[in-house]
Amino acid sequence: MEGIMMKTIYVNATFFTMDKENHIFENGMMVVEDQLISYIGERSDELMVGADQVVDLAGKWVMPGLVNTHSHILMTLLRGIGDDMLLKPWLETKIWPIESQYTTEIASVSAQLGILEMVKSGTTTFSDMFNPNGIDSNVVMETIGETGIRGAFSYSIFSFGTEEQQKANIKGAEEFSKKYKMFADGRLTTMVAPHSPYACTPEALMECVRIAKENDLMMHIHVSETDYEIQDILTRYGNRPVEHLRKLGVFDQPTVMAHGVVLNDEERAILKQYDVRVAHNPISNLKLGSGVADVVSLLDAGIIVGIATDSTASNNNLDMFEEVRTAALLQKGMYKDATKLPAQTALALATRVGAEAIGMGHTGSLEANKKADFITIYPYDKEHLQPVSAAYSHLLYAARGSDVCDVFIDGKTIVKDRKCLTIDEEKVIAEVNRLQKSLV
Amino acid sequence: MEGIMMKTIYVNATFFTMDKENHIFENGMMVVEDQLISYIGERSDELMVGADQVVDLAGKWVMPGLVNTHSHILMTLLRGIGDDMLLKPWLETKIWPIESQYTTEIASVSAQLGILEMVKSGTTTFSDMFNPNGIDSNVVMETIGETGIRGAFSYSIFSFGTEEQQKANIKGAEEFSKKYKMFADGRLTTMVAPHSPYACTPEALMECVRIAKENDLMMHIHVSETDYEIQDILTRYGNRPVEHLRKLGVFDQPTVMAHGVVLNDEERAILKQYDVRVAHNPISNLKLGSGVADVVSLLDAGIIVGIATDSTASNNNLDMFEEVRTAALLQKGMYKDATKLPAQTALALATRVGAEAIGMGHTGSLEANKKADFITIYPYDKEHLQPVSAAYSHLLYAARGSDVCDVFIDGKTIVKDRKCLTIDEEKVIAEVNRLQKSLV
Ligand SMILES: [Zn+2]
Ligand SMILES: [Zn+2]
Repeated sequence: MEGIMMKTIYVNATFFTMDKENHIFENGMMVVEDQLISYIGERSDELMVGADQVVDLAGKWVMPGLVNTHSHILMTLLRGIGDDMLLKPWLETKIWPIESQYTTEIASVSAQLGILEMVKSGTTTFSDMFNPNGIDSNVVMETIGETGIRGAFSYSIFSFGTEEQQKANIKGAEEFSKKYKMFADGRLTTMVAPHSPYACTPEALMECVRIAKENDLMMHIHVSETDYEIQDILTRYGNRPVEHLRKLGVFDQPTVMAHGVVLNDEERAILKQYDVRVAHNPISNLKLGSGVADVVSLLDAGIIVGIATDSTASNNNLDMFEEVRTAALLQKGMYKDATKLPAQTALALATRVGAEAIGMGHTGSLEANKKADFITIYPYDKEHLQPVSAAYSHLLYAARGSDVCDVFIDGKTIVKDRKCLTIDEEKVIAEVNRLQKSLV
Repeated sequence: MEGIMMKTIYVNATFFTMDKENHIFENGMMVVEDQLISYIGERSDELMVGADQVVDLAGKWVMPGLVNTHSHILMTLLRGIGDDMLLKPWLETKIWPIESQYTTEIASVSAQLGILEMVKSGTTTFSDMFNPNGIDSNVVMETIGETGIRGAFSYSIFSFGTEEQQKANIKGAEEFSKKYKMFADGRLTTMVAPHSPYACTPEALMECVRIAKENDLMMHIHVSETDYEIQDILTRYGNRPVEHLRKLGVFDQPTVMAHGVVLNDEERAILKQYDVRVAHNPISNLKLGSGVADVVSLLDAGIIVGIATDSTASNNNLDMFEEVRTAALLQKGMYKDATKLPAQTALALATRVGAEAIGMGHTGSLEANKKADFITIYPYDKEHLQPVSAAYSHLLYAARGSDVCDVFIDGKTIVKDRKCLTIDEEKVIAEVNRLQKSLV
């Protein structure tokens, strides 16, 4: 792959850069050299010189690939299991018992299905937390590498089972962390991922901090998801989750915390102080009855917020267009103020800001020197994207994952005209249905 | 069309009847004779005798067409206009000024675009309220008739302008009401539609009641959408909107009220007493900052509730799958209880119960003697509908309008393999973009 530089020029499209100034180039031009964007802007004939390839996008809209800041792709096979249930019994009677039957094969096929759904609906970067029980996580990481997606795949730490099992879990996480800081041409990395303050002992959390520090990795953890969790941690440790984790040193490492539904001003101040980022999962939080995170207050406090789907077991799809739309709508509804979380802010959270949240500022917007991770939408045959002149509005308020036509990651075509080139779609779907039947 | 009876048998599908007992027939059979379902259930070779046509649905899912209980299809061309604005300035500075420039051509093309989007995303029945200003509503009604959709198309009454204009508005509504009670082979009807208690004088509302009574029509009106409206009506008339309308006799006619976001127990008791039905518009209510209607309390009070999109100017799409999913998710989130508005209840509101809400109990479920209004989804090539065994869950929690493959209304094919047979899609999209540019 190395050695020969490839210069591709994309023309005849409207480019929504999602950069800080929200530049939009109608009939613009984007130059990609290998994995990087080298130019984006007005069409320039000068820059056409020396192109290996000029791609006519024929009126498409182009935007950065969406960034899903919190997922569990190994659970994709569990879609539709245990709907309409509360979080605790859902985890304890449905999810965890079924996960205990997982095999490497089930995990790999679930991962492929999840990634297939992500890329086909426009997500090019994800940050995932997986349950390593019973599976060879190296095989799964290899499988993910082959799909061409960008992201962080993180080995969960749980303080369950015997002392021996807990030690093995942490040992596994440490080995995984050392091995995969940089993988698949740098597209994949990993974080240290204690599941949550309620599923991890203080000792386990401190071990996680040590591993993250020694390997210079980010932390990824579920925090402040439900009222129940707040009470539980307060009862067990005398502090609410945020203070509990702060005291244990978790926030001394750059941390992404999923959820942040139940937070007060004091806690938001701590998150800001420690630069903790929040992965906001609006649909999962609604579906599990957790509530609605106060994203407006998080942003007002200067906290970096990304958008996320959580797993298909609590969502139940991985469509980031729907997710970010729901995020924007909820803040307006909760505040009874239609001006909250306007289109530009919301779309930034799902792209540039989300990428920043998970430590991947090298993607998430169409700017020179950023990774060439982008998607296209052809609007002219889609009734729900008319009239086309309000394109920017439609990206947030009307589009859906199935509108995505092509997907590029690291400059490479991953989806072409709604067909994934890196995953055998038919095979994965057949396998998913075969394997799902094998689970009780 | 009359005279020759056509018997079509649909086999090799999973039928989600959405009847009261929620029967599901895997590898079932449905017999359609002309416009009506004559049998649905287990496959029966006896019933195959005398079929004119046997249609092999090849593993598809079949469900009743969705019922959109409150829309404004003439506004479809306004999609993306005035996002992130409060209701009052949005109506007064964006929507109404632009609507004042409407022509019959704009109205007809908007209607076609709206219906195209509805049918292609699985809606077979709708109830709409249109602004008649500047247009020949007979032409628009004819256009709607040609699309093959089922529904009620209702002429709005507003107390705006001079006394003369107000009289003309009511006269127009009365003529329209008389003419279209039964239209397009009975697929289309109309209701008497005073816009709202804030946009209609008490006199106009009483005139509406008279017209509805004399012509035996339902009423369709926006009520209790925002806190502002409650205060406004209370200040102007000394009562909150529900009591104000009750006193004027509006609820003496069967009434569908859109929104019902701001209601108290006393008001819910009145709605129940008068059998007023509520069209719940979860996305529009969020987007305009109105809030979240308490659907759980409405259902607990025994009130009939349907699901609705409102217009594309406050949604901004007409995807009823997304709408009913949002409805279910919001109640769980608001109540912090994942068991609220479970899948079966939510899907019923979007189909059978919604149809009942708008006085169209002859559609909305797959049952013998109901109208053959149904849609199909082919799941096996859709990653977000895997594993297929959890089909019922996916219909609510994972599906989207673009999953709809075929649409039948009155037994007639309206959409076949995602191509609408009754509307020239390319032409409508071209016209929409041309006409939108002509508006200021
Ligand atoms: Zn999670
Ligand atoms: Zn409305």
